[in-house]
Amino acid sequence: MTTSLRSTLDFLLYDWLQAESLTARERFTDHSRETFDAVLDTCERIAREKYAPFNRTVDVQEPHFDGEKVILPQCTYDARQAFADSGMLSAAQDYELGGMQLPYVVESAAGSFFGCASISIGSNLLTTGNANAILVHGTPMQQQVFAANEFNGRWAGTMCLSEPQAGSSLSDIATRAVPDVESAAAADGMVPWDQDALGPRYRLRGNKMWISSGDHELTENIVHLVLAKIPGPDGKLVPGVKGISLFIVPKKLVDIKGNLTGERNDVALAGLNHKLGWRGTTNTLLNFGEGKYPVRAEQGGGLDGHGAGAIGYLVGKPGEGLKCMFHMMNEARISIGMAATMLGLAGYYASLDYAKTRLQGRPIGEAGKDASAPQVRLIEHADVKRMLLAQKSYGEGALALNLYCARLVDEGRTGNAEAAAQARLLLEVLTPIAKSWPSEFCLEANSLAIQIHGGYGYTRDFPVEQYWRDNRLNMIHEGTHGIQAADLLGRKVVMQGGAGLKLLASTIGATIALARQRPELSAYADQLAQALHDVTAATQAAWSTGNANEALANAVPYMQAFGHMVLAWMWLDVAHSVLARDASLSIAANAGRLSAARYFFRYELPKIGAWLGVVATRDATCAAMAEDAF
Amino acid sequence: MTTSLRSTLDFLLYDWLQAESLTARERFTDHSRETFDAVLDTCERIAREKYAPFNRTVDVQEPHFDGEKVILPQCTYDARQAFADSGMLSAAQDYELGGMQLPYVVESAAGSFFGCASISIGSNLLTTGNANAILVHGTPMQQQVFAANEFNGRWAGTMCLSEPQAGSSLSDIATRAVPDVESAAAADGMVPWDQDALGPRYRLRGNKMWISSGDHELTENIVHLVLAKIPGPDGKLVPGVKGISLFIVPKKLVDIKGNLTGERNDVALAGLNHKLGWRGTTNTLLNFGEGKYPVRAEQGGGLDGHGAGAIGYLVGKPGEGLKCMFHMMNEARISIGMAATMLGLAGYYASLDYAKTRLQGRPIGEAGKDASAPQVRLIEHADVKRMLLAQKSYGEGALALNLYCARLVDEGRTGNAEAAAQARLLLEVLTPIAKSWPSEFCLEANSLAIQIHGGYGYTRDFPVEQYWRDNRLNMIHEGTHGIQAADLLGRKVVMQGGAGLKLLASTIGATIALARQRPELSAYADQLAQALHDVTAATQAAWSTGNANEALANAVPYMQAFGHMVLAWMWLDVAHSVLARDASLSIAANAGRLSAARYFFRYELPKIGAWLGVVATRDATCAAMAEDAF
Repeated sequence: MTTSLRSTLDFLLYDWLQAESLTARERFTDHSRETFDAVLDTCERIAREKYAPFNRTVDVQEPHFDGEKVILPQCTYDARQAFADSGMLSAAQDYELGGMQLPYVVESAAGSFFGCASISIGSNLLTTGNANAILVHGTPMQQQVFAANEFNGRWAGTMCLSEPQAGSSLSDIATRAVPDVESAAAADGMVPWDQDALGPRYRLRGNKMWISSGDHELTENIVHLVLAKIPGPDGKLVPGVKGISLFIVPKKLVDIKGNLTGERNDVALAGLNHKLGWRGTTNTLLNFGEGKYPVRAEQGGGLDGHGAGAIGYLVGKPGEGLKCMFHMMNEARISIGMAATMLGLAGYYASLDYAKTRLQGRPIGEAGKDASAPQVRLIEHADVKRMLLAQKSYGEGALALNLYCARLVDEGRTGNAEAAAQARLLLEVLTPIAKSWPSEFCLEANSLAIQIHGGYGYTRDFPVEQYWRDNRLNMIHEGTHGIQAADLLGRKVVMQGGAGLKLLASTIGATIALARQRPELSAYADQLAQALHDVTAATQAAWSTGNANEALANAVPYMQAFGHMVLAWMWLDVAHSVLARDASLSIAANAGRLSAARYFFRYELPKIGAWLGVVATRDATCAAMAEDAF
Repeated sequence: MTTSLRSTLDFLLYDWLQAESLTARERFTDHSRETFDAVLDTCERIAREKYAPFNRTVDVQEPHFDGEKVILPQCTYDARQAFADSGMLSAAQDYELGGMQLPYVVESAAGSFFGCASISIGSNLLTTGNANAILVHGTPMQQQVFAANEFNGRWAGTMCLSEPQAGSSLSDIATRAVPDVESAAAADGMVPWDQDALGPRYRLRGNKMWISSGDHELTENIVHLVLAKIPGPDGKLVPGVKGISLFIVPKKLVDIKGNLTGERNDVALAGLNHKLGWRGTTNTLLNFGEGKYPVRAEQGGGLDGHGAGAIGYLVGKPGEGLKCMFHMMNEARISIGMAATMLGLAGYYASLDYAKTRLQGRPIGEAGKDASAPQVRLIEHADVKRMLLAQKSYGEGALALNLYCARLVDEGRTGNAEAAAQARLLLEVLTPIAKSWPSEFCLEANSLAIQIHGGYGYTRDFPVEQYWRDNRLNMIHEGTHGIQAADLLGRKVVMQGGAGLKLLASTIGATIALARQRPELSAYADQLAQALHDVTAATQAAWSTGNANEALANAVPYMQAFGHMVLAWMWLDVAHSVLARDASLSIAANAGRLSAARYFFRYELPKIGAWLGVVATRDATCAAMAEDAF
């Protein structure tokens, strides 16, 4: 399995994306193909030794709460420790932060081994994302105390956005944050709220839902990044997203040197969510300020049975919380896409292994007429090959897209001004696809992996049913499919007068122009040009009445078509890359990539017609459906 | 939930399929709308009281083996008892067998309540199918002893076909059956093997895999119907399906009065399969004749540590076992399609309820700009409506198809000679679709039901994740998707010179002709006519080289397109039926059916182009893929 993945990564990273050329840039000047490979080697090894053998263990030994602590299996501790020891938590950070200034695209590629081995053990993404947000928006002291201790592995981080009544609709969060004026007034030894070295000190009360890694004993402390609303002068919460601010709320209170003070903050585990999959990662409902762990001023008495609130330190400016959070959204969404992709590939590798060894049935036609001949292997049946090739085209295509996006992140950070601006714009447009497409089609890949296993695939004795369950989450978290689609058609393709879509079109156009020069690819190039034309036309038709309700009524089919067009582009570009170099790769692997590209153009791209049809006509069948007619 | 289902069933059964007209036939002359309704009422009540409340219970309290017995939760016993007491096990049978001579279409409709309430509690399908096979192929004594005691609920039945090494490839089964000559020779009181009143007596040895309800204590006895091979004169098994015979192998031995003799037959539970879903039903690996429960002659000593074999009675003629089994295949496959359908509808009803109450987000555009206004319900969002309407069109469309097929069963049994022959032919062609289409698209419906629930849908606190897991089995058992597709394109549409396909085309053509007369439907009629033309042309193109390998390389995409065409036909026929009568139904329900039909023609039917493209061109991308290129 890891052999196939490694050779695919090597091709995409070095041959296709030419990651080595990044070493010419100042930030990466100490790096080389050798240092990149060393990182890949390390991650491959840790994933093989500490993650893969325990994927079923963490599914079966689901987290539970003993009344005091969350209990996780030992393998989760070991995996986390090995990951933190590897330095990957801060791989992309500056040297002065203890990082290795690794390009994000290499970090992403290296991280893919963990996703393939066990998506649900690894929850380090949120810690890195949390620390990154503090790096960008926090004070130097917040960076030093909180971000640094997350990067070095001492503490873990969470993102606390959703609430039971506010999932997709973040503007409706009800967690309140009020300045902690009482603590100092109570003369309990705390400095006034607006003079705290860790940042303006608030008291938070509310409930946060779906918090991954919201409570555990894997690390000494947990740094919650919490969205909450500061009431206006009238004591009321400001409606909408403008009222939202961002706070650091540590599970255990700390001093400015990063030492635990010995006091627990008033953040209480209210419940563990029992999920369909992805069970290795705790997912929690957290209560902030319910008075379970009173913090100092509580002796003064909480209101209505509650504590005075959990202590939180404001990050950035009041009212700009969502903006701060969104800073890390692109990377988080690419990471979800990558998670979905790696589950898809994990299922592909498992079903490929199975198909190569399992004997069942005989060839079609004359060759199979001799019932006394031994059975053939599954992989000798055309329909099984079809299911394998579909998985390959989905999984490797999605991997190409996610790495391409990761490369854009690097360009946005280290390219020259114009290239960087273009990369950021292109990434904006591609992000909903990088997140949604693998979530949908690599889930479908996992279903095909089950199908190849037949009845065995439906049992828990084989890994594929777990991949399928784990993958079902990815269309939901970090913005549902519907949210991604509304973002794509409602914002990304129309923003700045459609500049993003135009940039994408010209970028795709460059691939088309190259591919047209190769006879093997010219028909596909034409097909992609037509698809690009159709998507562009549908975009215009959707918005032709200027009515957002009409335009967005079929946003998801639009996103599906858009995604298939993007993936066709990826495959065409990959195929061109294969043909353009005398490969250092084996011929078989190249033939496989060309076949996967061909599969995508023959079997998949033609699907966009049905999806675009309803978009272009602004079909109102669904939107106009009366509620009582369901 | 059951209100919606009942009104849908009433419409399909009475208004659309005109089931009442069956009461004019001799077999059903005692029946009336009232007796049909009484059966529906009873099943609806039992499903509501004894099945629905326990669907999660049987998922969580999975069957386990204590070393002696299979342990199931009490609710499974209660549900089974209520079902048996209702008389539904023999509802369609003759009066003289204790049956009620109910039309199969009414039995199917009534049975749908159980599927919707808890698919995994109910495993009665196999008992009825087992008894039906004995009725047709068994001796009068076998019918009286075995079938009768299954119909009356005393005993349960199984179908033992697959083996660990032979799933889809039944011709490779290795279970051996040899005439039981030794028992009488050992003078242990048994009559000679060929004079046993229960049928020619054999000794069976082998392993049977995936046996649903293979062991349990729900009933006094279990009647296994087992496929096995009788060795030839050279002691070798005959290769291929011709060597397969059918045997009755009771778990506990019985006499000719149907009393237990007190001896256990040598059928041993070798293991329970631990499944992804459908956990209420035990699924087993059974060992026949391993010597765990020696039967009489074993004192003479088994060979190589085994017993002399499990006692089995031949059903029908030697070598015709598969033919006997296939007798019940059509009904079994319709039943799987119905199971998939009801899971799809269960998810639809659950997500519809949720969408009507859950508040989340605000309208698109101006109406949603006021962030201080309360959130709206999910069902007010166009994308949620889209996901609901998709589920409705999949689930209700599949229900229509399955009931239509059940009605064909009745016609095949009670119609005049010509009509009966036509019905049987049409059913042959439609069976792979009735089984495969709901298995694929009602699974997709379940995924949409999860999606509507957001994060909550991914937890085990809501029922939808279980529906999705349960439904994943249906593309696998009773012939996988690949097997169905090969059956459709390789056999059903070409047999008898394509007579089945021609009959289907003319039947669809009749609907098209009717629909063209209604302005509301004429465009859809044209669209369906085009689809029928495209499917027919693709069929011819696939077979144009006469090479089965080329024709069948894309059998699954062919089946998907064929299925969508059939479903479009169902919806057009239903829509026509709605418009053709002044409904006794509420206007909203009719509007809903018309919208679901419209959805299917606008959003779904256009998908067939992509599927048919590879069929018509006999695309070899998958089939030609070299193994080392994966």
